[in-house]
Amino acid sequence: MERTYKLIELVGVSEKNYEEAIKNAVAKATETLFGLSWFEVVELRGRIDDNQVVEFQAKLKVAFKLIKS
Amino acid sequence: MERTYKLIELVGVSEKNYEEAIKNAVAKATETLFGLSWFEVVELRGRIDDNQVVEFQAKLKVAFKLIKS
Amino acid sequence: MERTYKLIELVGVSEKNYEEAIKNAVAKATETLFGLSWFEVVELRGRIDDNQVVEFQAKLKVAFKLIKS
Amino acid sequence: MERTYKLIELVGVSEKNYEEAIKNAVAKATETLFGLSWFEVVELRGRIDDNQVVEFQAKLKVAFKLIKS
Amino acid sequence: MERTYKLIELVGVSEKNYEEAIKNAVAKATETLFGLSWFEVVELRGRIDDNQVVEFQAKLKVAFKLIKS
Amino acid sequence: MERTYKLIELVGVSEKNYEEAIKNAVAKATETLFGLSWFEVVELRGRIDDNQVVEFQAKLKVAFKLIKS
Amino acid sequence: MERTYKLIELVGVSEKNYEEAIKNAVAKATETLFGLSWFEVVELRGRIDDNQVVEFQAKLKVAFKLIKS
Amino acid sequence: MERTYKLIELVGVSEKNYEEAIKNAVAKATETLFGLSWFEVVELRGRIDDNQVVEFQAKLKVAFKLIKS
Amino acid sequence: MERTYKLIELVGVSEKNYEEAIKNAVAKATETLFGLSWFEVVELRGRIDDNQVVEFQAKLKVAFKLIKS
Amino acid sequence: MERTYKLIELVGVSEKNYEEAIKNAVAKATETLFGLSWFEVVELRGRIDDNQVVEFQAKLKVAFKLIKS
Amino acid sequence: MERTYKLIELVGVSEKNYEEAIKNAVAKATETLFGLSWFEVVELRGRIDDNQVVEFQAKLKVAFKLIKS
Amino acid sequence: MERTYKLIELVGVSEKNYEEAIKNAVAKATETLFGLSWFEVVELRGRIDDNQVVEFQAKLKVAFKLIKS
Repeated sequence: MERTYKLIELVGVSEKNYEEAIKNAVAKATETLFGLSWFEVVELRGRIDDNQVVEFQAKLKVAFKLIKS
Repeated sequence: MERTYKLIELVGVSEKNYEEAIKNAVAKATETLFGLSWFEVVELRGRIDDNQVVEFQAKLKVAFKLIKS
Repeated sequence: MERTYKLIELVGVSEKNYEEAIKNAVAKATETLFGLSWFEVVELRGRIDDNQVVEFQAKLKVAFKLIKS
Repeated sequence: MERTYKLIELVGVSEKNYEEAIKNAVAKATETLFGLSWFEVVELRGRIDDNQVVEFQAKLKVAFKLIKS
Repeated sequence: MERTYKLIELVGVSEKNYEEAIKNAVAKATETLFGLSWFEVVELRGRIDDNQVVEFQAKLKVAFKLIKS
Repeated sequence: MERTYKLIELVGVSEKNYEEAIKNAVAKATETLFGLSWFEVVELRGRIDDNQVVEFQAKLKVAFKLIKS
Repeated sequence: MERTYKLIELVGVSEKNYEEAIKNAVAKATETLFGLSWFEVVELRGRIDDNQVVEFQAKLKVAFKLIKS
Repeated sequence: MERTYKLIELVGVSEKNYEEAIKNAVAKATETLFGLSWFEVVELRGRIDDNQVVEFQAKLKVAFKLIKS
Repeated sequence: MERTYKLIELVGVSEKNYEEAIKNAVAKATETLFGLSWFEVVELRGRIDDNQVVEFQAKLKVAFKLIKS
Repeated sequence: MERTYKLIELVGVSEKNYEEAIKNAVAKATETLFGLSWFEVVELRGRIDDNQVVEFQAKLKVAFKLIKS
Repeated sequence: MERTYKLIELVGVSEKNYEEAIKNAVAKATETLFGLSWFEVVELRGRIDDNQVVEFQAKLKVAFKLIKS
Repeated sequence: MERTYKLIELVGVSEKNYEEAIKNAVAKATETLFGLSWFEVVELRGRIDDNQVVEFQAKLKVAFKLIKS
């Protein structure tokens, strides 16, 4: 029962949509972290260049279980 | 003129994206409620399993008109 | 270095999804403004009609660089 | 001592002012609920038509005591 | 379907009440803008002078439809 | 996968502490609802009488799964 | 130039409307304080009794100038 | 009917829990104030020393009725 | 008495500090607007380059009086 | 251990910067209060006159220890 | 004087109460971090299973001093 | 395009002003992190000792680019 979760804050980006931006950030997190469990969207922004939306940016908190010591 | 709206809070889920999560919640609400009028997104979260985003979760308030008594 | 940005607040709509709603609002802004640089999502809502989600609405702040006087 | 309150969220409207919008929503709630006890204003908005403020809208949470089972 | 709304932020004042403060701001906005559609109250403040409330101030966002280009 | 949750807002009270206030509200909810799944604390308040804290009040959202139709 | 303001938080009540609730709180403050300058509305609530809105409650911060020492 | 409440902001501390921290702050307030009526929890923090949680800190607003002048 | 203020949102930047960032944004605003009256700081951010804070960015709302029509 | 802190809310002003505005408010507070311990910045605003930022205004909460009774 | 603190975000859980949930998270943090100094409660939630509150969850930020390099 | 940023939360302190507090925290972060890109101010506080503001404390989020794996 006495598990603990840690949350880290990431910004993922995508040319297509926020869901892909989230997936990109989570994929990056999985390179170094185990036991990812959930995420919470904190902020949605984006970049405009030459009159076009060129990037969707999702700031999210990703939670993972700290392993038993 | 003296209409009143009621808002209920739902969480819809989808494997694909937030728009589908919203539509799923609204579809569920239409099973028991009439006169749905608008929704407001309250929170966006999701679940990660086995290193993958497996679920987008949208918490929303759904508003409907209370019928004349 | 001493550039200044102005932000205006818009609501874009789309039948499909929030990304398109954002793009529609940005496209509208480009008709009269130059140098659009980024946007910040402020609120996500939508309209329901006849038991269907018929419209996704994204309120966003769009930032652009004020030209040197 | 072990009473419980439930809060529901309503939007009341009025052509005149926010107090009447609140009273209208509360009056509507009394049609189906007993033991209304207090309300909390959540949001104030309104509609403009033909250059006139035609409607004041008050979103409020209305609390009532759940009866002893 | 692809309409866009713009929101501007105003502070209206009144000696009498917030509803009149809102109406004053909206009336001022109609001098230069067409297609006003709704408003959202952002903040309520006021001024006190000589021990009296002499002014109610309502900060509001006023939304209007951007015309088709 | 396409489950939906509904959240209702309750205020539970206790003479002892917030955990008991939460448990009281949840116990009340279980009288009429099935499938309660989680809660979120929204606000903590309390009542003082005769110089004593006589009541801890926890406002919480309680979520439950809507049954398949 | 080096003036300082202090803000105190009050809840005023009225049977009629929020403007009178504010005025009542400010009038009470003037009994013991000099140099009241502005107020900021923090929260709007109310009490319901016997199916009627019997009281509008405005929580506000009232600011006054601290006198030169 | 025309009563007014004043709220003051306090931080109470306890080695044991937040409820005791709240009670300590309220007890301190009763030394100089009459007619305490309710409190609202604003923030929960704590101090860690030598790898132990040594102190729970509750910031709260305490409301009391201003006496008739 | 029936004056109205409009607020616009700007981001000013400075290599030195937030006060200069604010002054830069206000100076830019005075090129095209009359009757600037106050500002409200909305957000403080900055840019880091090559391990150095190279820019302080202040997002602010600037208010000005709309002229009598 | 059972110490209690009280927080008061002040607005300090300065022609130069926010740090001086804070120091001015704290200096004013020390005229009548003992045991000031920390402050929390609540809001940053300012006044513009004749196209110049003439005043930085910092709203802050100042905390001090209530003496043992 | 030029010390720096880092804050990490954790979720601690407990079957009993929020204070134990906090202590569990802090105890977990002490396994890998030195110099823990304070914590700030960010969110309180919990899990319900079989009509019972089975878990209190406290999301908190834990601060620790970065060691001199 | 598929870059990801991570944000960490720091508190920097300075005897002089918030800009130096921010620079101190960023300088500390550069000891162990590469590719710092921007920061966001989260909270401004300070310490008072012996009637003097002795420390400005800036809580900020510092963002840096995660390197390609």
